Amino acid sequence: MEPAAGALVAAGALVPAKRAGASVVHLRAHWFIAARSRELRHAPVATTLFGTPIVLFRGKDGKAGALLDRCPHRNVPLSLGQVSDGTLRCPYHGWQFDTGGACTHIPSLPSERAGDVKARRAHALPTLEQQGFIWVYSAPSQDEQDPSTMPSSVPHRFATMGHRDYTTVVQSVVAPGTMYSTIENALDVPHTAFLHRGLFRAESRGLTITAKVRRTSDRVEAEYVGEPRPPGLIGRILSPSGGTVTHFDRFILPSIAQVEYSIGAENHILVDSVMTPVSDFVTRIYAVVSFRTRVPHFLVRPFVKPLALRVFQQDAFILAKQTETIRAFGGEQFASTEIDVLGRHIWRLLKQAERGDEHGGEESAEVELVV
Amino acid sequence: MEPAAGALVAAGALVPAKRAGASVVHLRAHWFIAARSRELRHAPVATTLFGTPIVLFRGKDGKAGALLDRCPHRNVPLSLGQVSDGTLRCPYHGWQFDTGGACTHIPSLPSERAGDVKARRAHALPTLEQQGFIWVYSAPSQDEQDPSTMPSSVPHRFATMGHRDYTTVVQSVVAPGTMYSTIENALDVPHTAFLHRGLFRAESRGLTITAKVRRTSDRVEAEYVGEPRPPGLIGRILSPSGGTVTHFDRFILPSIAQVEYSIGAENHILVDSVMTPVSDFVTRIYAVVSFRTRVPHFLVRPFVKPLALRVFQQDAFILAKQTETIRAFGGEQFASTEIDVLGRHIWRLLKQAERGDEHGGEESAEVELVV
Amino acid sequence: MEPAAGALVAAGALVPAKRAGASVVHLRAHWFIAARSRELRHAPVATTLFGTPIVLFRGKDGKAGALLDRCPHRNVPLSLGQVSDGTLRCPYHGWQFDTGGACTHIPSLPSERAGDVKARRAHALPTLEQQGFIWVYSAPSQDEQDPSTMPSSVPHRFATMGHRDYTTVVQSVVAPGTMYSTIENALDVPHTAFLHRGLFRAESRGLTITAKVRRTSDRVEAEYVGEPRPPGLIGRILSPSGGTVTHFDRFILPSIAQVEYSIGAENHILVDSVMTPVSDFVTRIYAVVSFRTRVPHFLVRPFVKPLALRVFQQDAFILAKQTETIRAFGGEQFASTEIDVLGRHIWRLLKQAERGDEHGGEESAEVELVV
Repeated sequence: MEPAAGALVAAGALVPAKRAGASVVHLRAHWFIAARSRELRHAPVATTLFGTPIVLFRGKDGKAGALLDRCPHRNVPLSLGQVSDGTLRCPYHGWQFDTGGACTHIPSLPSERAGDVKARRAHALPTLEQQGFIWVYSAPSQDEQDPSTMPSSVPHRFATMGHRDYTTVVQSVVAPGTMYSTIENALDVPHTAFLHRGLFRAESRGLTITAKVRRTSDRVEAEYVGEPRPPGLIGRILSPSGGTVTHFDRFILPSIAQVEYSIGAENHILVDSVMTPVSDFVTRIYAVVSFRTRVPHFLVRPFVKPLALRVFQQDAFILAKQTETIRAFGGEQFASTEIDVLGRHIWRLLKQAERGDEHGGEESAEVELVV
Repeated sequence: MEPAAGALVAAGALVPAKRAGASVVHLRAHWFIAARSRELRHAPVATTLFGTPIVLFRGKDGKAGALLDRCPHRNVPLSLGQVSDGTLRCPYHGWQFDTGGACTHIPSLPSERAGDVKARRAHALPTLEQQGFIWVYSAPSQDEQDPSTMPSSVPHRFATMGHRDYTTVVQSVVAPGTMYSTIENALDVPHTAFLHRGLFRAESRGLTITAKVRRTSDRVEAEYVGEPRPPGLIGRILSPSGGTVTHFDRFILPSIAQVEYSIGAENHILVDSVMTPVSDFVTRIYAVVSFRTRVPHFLVRPFVKPLALRVFQQDAFILAKQTETIRAFGGEQFASTEIDVLGRHIWRLLKQAERGDEHGGEESAEVELVV
Repeated sequence: MEPAAGALVAAGALVPAKRAGASVVHLRAHWFIAARSRELRHAPVATTLFGTPIVLFRGKDGKAGALLDRCPHRNVPLSLGQVSDGTLRCPYHGWQFDTGGACTHIPSLPSERAGDVKARRAHALPTLEQQGFIWVYSAPSQDEQDPSTMPSSVPHRFATMGHRDYTTVVQSVVAPGTMYSTIENALDVPHTAFLHRGLFRAESRGLTITAKVRRTSDRVEAEYVGEPRPPGLIGRILSPSGGTVTHFDRFILPSIAQVEYSIGAENHILVDSVMTPVSDFVTRIYAVVSFRTRVPHFLVRPFVKPLALRVFQQDAFILAKQTETIRAFGGEQFASTEIDVLGRHIWRLLKQAERGDEHGGEESAEVELVV
């Protein structure tokens, strides 16, 4: 019963925290990726969303369903049970549930007392499977009597996935940071020249470029104008002969970080990083990298994954250390400059979404930074 | 100083908990088993009761005593010390205490300043040793000047232990659940057909039996009428030729779960599971299994322990997962049906005992369940 | 995601704690040792003071500096970065800081927007290096524009360190207890006869000695009169032929425990234990043992360190168990006697210092104890 160090340490005793808490948002009624399709076969899959345990399983028709991972009877995780004939059976007393959350069977209960009693229902979350991902809606089904009723919003689609000219690579990693910090990290330009030195860009060549920022009600976009061809390894692979660079960074609610590069007419790369808030300080990133290049894909592909994983590892390490520091000081205190181009816009959009405010004002700006 | 995951995770962010907390009761002034007699020899034994550290040791007369495991001087655990001439000596400054809690010696203190000063006393808990167990009362001795004054209540006795016709097996295991959940689990009939499938009972044979429930001020009992001979392995061992089954489940305050089976006139089995609330979510079970069978005991005995341990393992696993789930959701939300025969009565008796109300109303009911 | 036991256990459920909390003090604006000089070379050194992360590094002039270990930009620990040309560079975006906390460079930021902006400063703590130790002041520099402005108070000096007649041995150990408990332990006489039996003293010889206690505004001193030559191993080493013993124990604010022994005219030993409050329940002890003996130092020295470390180990074990017990009971309840000679004075001085009260009353007393 060794005490956890954290419980004993009075954090920040030397210098009082000016602001408590960290950039944590809880977004109800939005779509998040809960798993890849290929992960969900016959056995149920346990995961968490905003720290809440959920269980995925396939119903009789093969359709994926999601329930809170807690048997309403004695609160044992349903994910420990087995799927039988499209229902998930709790391992403790054998209560069975369909993907809509209805309790379809209770062993030992005389049949005249069985039935779809409200208190016996498991909470179901709307679920949609598309493009190889299982998306779950972060609020219980509105209509418990008909859990197949879907929300009016739909999950994000990956624009070039499956297109004949594109190769698409999917990778999932876990970042030990808040969803906000992980999104900002994915769209932050200055750190790439420093933390990822030699992978993305060389250290500064002293060129001043302009970022044109536009924020609307559900997204913010930065267009980088005047950017030279990346000189690093990725640049050399993408465009051996150079060419005009078009570069957009976008944040799309609730949790998509999108980076789009065009180099010349022939090279196009689109990276969608979809964040799943596993818990307040743990974010799963589903990265969908889609590209069209002038060099054959079979030559490019072997380089993309190892490079991307190296970048992820460096970011994950930094996010873990940031999380520890925020915790040790009892909250975060971020100082920003103009070149933290998208950070404050992402935070504003997330807070609007948390409040349920769908009509945040628009904003445009131009920022200069040296690359 | 890696942060504990639990400290960072905002549990239940997706769906607000309707009810915080879990089924935890703190019963003051009741008898609990602190150890088996054979565990306490010359060295002191450290344990906890409701999360409070206590130390057991034997006084000059060999009688077991219990003190709060905290030296009143500088709060070092007395259990780290040595017993010398019936007194327990703190390892830090050598203060010595008898089983009544009196400080009998302080090294370096001039003798004229020594003596039984109230502030120097360790808190003693009434202790009684019988039938191979050391029972401790969950409240400090009323009369600190005479800690040998015993409470008016007495510990539970095991009815058939030591009887010449009975074989008695004692086993102690730790369940990672609240005392309430552990008691309910021990007396819950429906889960045996499911969780312990093949050990106790086969899955349902579709027979409807009746449970006659009677609750009085200190206990609740369910008598199962119409129950067939158990078809599982235990059934075959107990009564190869069948016979009328009499089956009682009882909860007796503060923490005894009693299961009694008679099959025919010759077979009688009595299982007393006495729960010790080690802490809020850890319960130690002392199971005393006493049986009289028509087949010779030396044939039955080798089967009883392995089977019972397998059952305990399955229950312990489920209780651990239930505890984790309750914690992840920030509290429990139990939905019950009529066939959760004793649960609500056990909870009512425990809450009455926690309030010190000894005159709870009586209640009788009949419940049908399918086995 | 196994829950920490501590989070689930309702401590002290059996007996309510009469007093919550433990003897923790947070002393702002005092000097503490952060590291030994030899530990700080080119790489930055991370440590904590009252649980707050700080980073040490050497500036261009080789002088040691201390900053809060948190980049003001995105709160990554600066100690993960590298020192380059006397500035410390954050590993995330490459912001650079001098030992005064000024941000001297931000990569990618156009030069006309750079400069010593207040929000971009890291918090600097006054730092002073002397006698082989790096002392850090437990409050940020008053004058942020000129962090070289030093506080009016100065760190403790080791009186005989470096003197030609003295040998000095330095040892650093970590004690798992509050700063208060660790100081009291270092100056507590009665426990040496018991916990360290055979190392310092034999068990009592029944001699009554007198402690003359004098407390002034920044210290408390106990002079032990009538003490015989220590009979244990250390005594035999120090003074084979006996001699008059002079023994002083002193606590000097903020955290120095000083033990001074003279045996005869030729033997003099001075042990300064300087405590660094790493966090509420972790205290680092820098022990500076300085001695002048009639036997040659090269004969004494091999015995001093192993003996001292054995004593530290025994004390550290007890302090760890004391901390666990205080935590399990939800707070401490110390009962003291007259022979806890300095304890209450140390506590009073620490609480005065925490309040910033520099003029606590004086007090004198005499206490008898048996050794």
